Amino acid sequence: MIPNDPYLLTPGPLTTSLSVKQAMLHDWGSWDNDFNQLTAEVCTRLLRVAGGENSHVCVPMQGSGTFAVEATLGTLIPRNSTTLVLMNGAYGQRISKILDRLGRRCLAIDKGDYHPPRGDEVERTLRQHPEIDQVVVVHCETSSGILNPIPEIAGVCQKAGKHLIIDSMSAFGALPVNVAELPCAALISSANKCFEGVPGFGFAIVDKTLLSESEGQCHSLSLDLHDQWRYMEKSGQWRYTPPTHVVAAFLQALREHEAEGGVAGRLARYSRNRDRLVAGLRELGFQTLLADEWLSPIITTFLSPDSPDFDFPRFYEAIKARGFLIYPGKLTVAESFRLGCIGQLHDEQIDAVVAAIADACQSLGMPVPVPPPAAAPDNLENH
Amino acid sequence: MIPNDPYLLTPGPLTTSLSVKQAMLHDWGSWDNDFNQLTAEVCTRLLRVAGGENSHVCVPMQGSGTFAVEATLGTLIPRNSTTLVLMNGAYGQRISKILDRLGRRCLAIDKGDYHPPRGDEVERTLRQHPEIDQVVVVHCETSSGILNPIPEIAGVCQKAGKHLIIDSMSAFGALPVNVAELPCAALISSANKCFEGVPGFGFAIVDKTLLSESEGQCHSLSLDLHDQWRYMEKSGQWRYTPPTHVVAAFLQALREHEAEGGVAGRLARYSRNRDRLVAGLRELGFQTLLADEWLSPIITTFLSPDSPDFDFPRFYEAIKARGFLIYPGKLTVAESFRLGCIGQLHDEQIDAVVAAIADACQSLGMPVPVPPPAAAPDNLENH
Repeated sequence: MIPNDPYLLTPGPLTTSLSVKQAMLHDWGSWDNDFNQLTAEVCTRLLRVAGGENSHVCVPMQGSGTFAVEATLGTLIPRNSTTLVLMNGAYGQRISKILDRLGRRCLAIDKGDYHPPRGDEVERTLRQHPEIDQVVVVHCETSSGILNPIPEIAGVCQKAGKHLIIDSMSAFGALPVNVAELPCAALISSANKCFEGVPGFGFAIVDKTLLSESEGQCHSLSLDLHDQWRYMEKSGQWRYTPPTHVVAAFLQALREHEAEGGVAGRLARYSRNRDRLVAGLRELGFQTLLADEWLSPIITTFLSPDSPDFDFPRFYEAIKARGFLIYPGKLTVAESFRLGCIGQLHDEQIDAVVAAIADACQSLGMPVPVPPPAAAPDNLENH
Repeated sequence: MIPNDPYLLTPGPLTTSLSVKQAMLHDWGSWDNDFNQLTAEVCTRLLRVAGGENSHVCVPMQGSGTFAVEATLGTLIPRNSTTLVLMNGAYGQRISKILDRLGRRCLAIDKGDYHPPRGDEVERTLRQHPEIDQVVVVHCETSSGILNPIPEIAGVCQKAGKHLIIDSMSAFGALPVNVAELPCAALISSANKCFEGVPGFGFAIVDKTLLSESEGQCHSLSLDLHDQWRYMEKSGQWRYTPPTHVVAAFLQALREHEAEGGVAGRLARYSRNRDRLVAGLRELGFQTLLADEWLSPIITTFLSPDSPDFDFPRFYEAIKARGFLIYPGKLTVAESFRLGCIGQLHDEQIDAVVAAIADACQSLGMPVPVPPPAAAPDNLENH
């Protein structure tokens, strides 16, 4: 009945299970108690995965993940405070763009395309700028696929008494995190990433005390996380119409997440996907942008073959014709493409995509690249 | 395979066709050309239904309908201009709340719970307040179910040279409108109303010249309608992750809308639903809040029986047990409940819900109300 859709080797929206999609075959009254129970279970489960049951609350927000990021920043950050943004890619840059638009002062440590922000430099900046009240960092920066050193940064923030806000869009659900232990003021993610739901809303796991102090602070009515929380506490309902079908799908996705062994189970599968993809592509002669230490189990950037014959759109279409959608690169320094490891991808699909890439290279007359004697930027740590 | 879900007698989210829901059984790459074509077809179709092919553009926005309203107001209304809001219920009030939050000056004509704003009073106010640059009105105010006199108000605005913004959330798709002829600066609606899609995004049909002059005006990055439009024009993609499944369902819904005869076909069915509901409930002794002239074919408010035995939650549950979800009232002046006429409801369901209401009244020991000698507020026009 379901046609053979291409597999998505993308960082989300991703390939979901058929049972997750089938959960959308019902209409729900957004005001009805049956639906309110779905919402409550979603929030309870997310809070448990984040380890925030005693300290945090979970507040969903309609729209894409960026809407949830803007809602969290706009609600939690007072108008007269200063924020430090740790940037190493498009998503860190977007956070700074949001703060600019909201008229919130911000400083940045910009590490360029793919270098991780480290604890010592954050510590130095916080010492030089005591006016900083909070730090914002991206967990897994999908521009490059780098996994940023969150515990290291959280430790520095805690020592300095600064709030930490984590954009964990593409990491939460697959990378272990405990918001109470880190600690962090807020962790933001969305339905269509590692929990393997479909897109339509994001959510924030927010420190309860901080959120309760943020009334009237938000620049937007729709994106007011405090209002959304208060209304939901009082009525069990979303403040404005929720994407009912997407919420139902997400609850099914959360149940499947638990059945796979939760974060540990998913991390194991995604890591295996990454290792298998990286090994397969290296065997074909492709190089990863990052050294192994920084490769996330979410998405990996591969450098495009250094050949005048390489043309990404043709490469993309050839692989799509073989049943897989890959992702373009997002680097300023080098031609690249990306392969996601998340979603309903197992050994079988990973092996098939490696074969499809090999086959596409051949059919396009692009010589499969030959590995150079030494691997790519292995000296990353020194930058 | 699909369980017998309750029918939704609500103003949206509503009961959709199985084929609309089945369109969500696929995963789409939000970056892929196949998905971009869905988006393009959705926008082209909406623009055609609105009669805006030569003057307007269609810009979708993630989130609920309120997000699209806030995006449109925040993007189109300059910071130093004054807006007149015509209010007669919760949705008009919400528009004024959004403008307050955005720091945009606004004046209001507040008609209370269920009286329509009329052309002459709008004309008077515009004359008294030449500083007003635009007027905002709700097409069908679902708080009461009243259908506001849009052509009358548009005529006054055009004569006075003021822009008109219409929140047509629950009306567009079932009530004929031509944005170029009215004219209006923007008309806002959402996926889960009269086009019978599922919730997850809204959209605005906006005057192209006005939109192109609105760069940098929006208070929010996520809700910036100008940015969304420019990005989509350039790339074919949504600026941030779209609710892919909801978009696919909406395209299917638009095709079914056309197959039913477009706006005329839908208006005919909804009007028939309303007439059958009103006749059936009047026969049981219930009274409509509004005189026939103002009853929209979208949702109708019925006054609760004037009896100490009437308890809405029990009434709601009894009707739900019989397979229908009804909607609570939203009036300050009188106890009431509402029944929607929109969604996949046909004669069979309408007759069944009337029977269910009769049956529920009996089983709850609530005497079916006896009609009074004269009908309810028939003198509405004089207020």
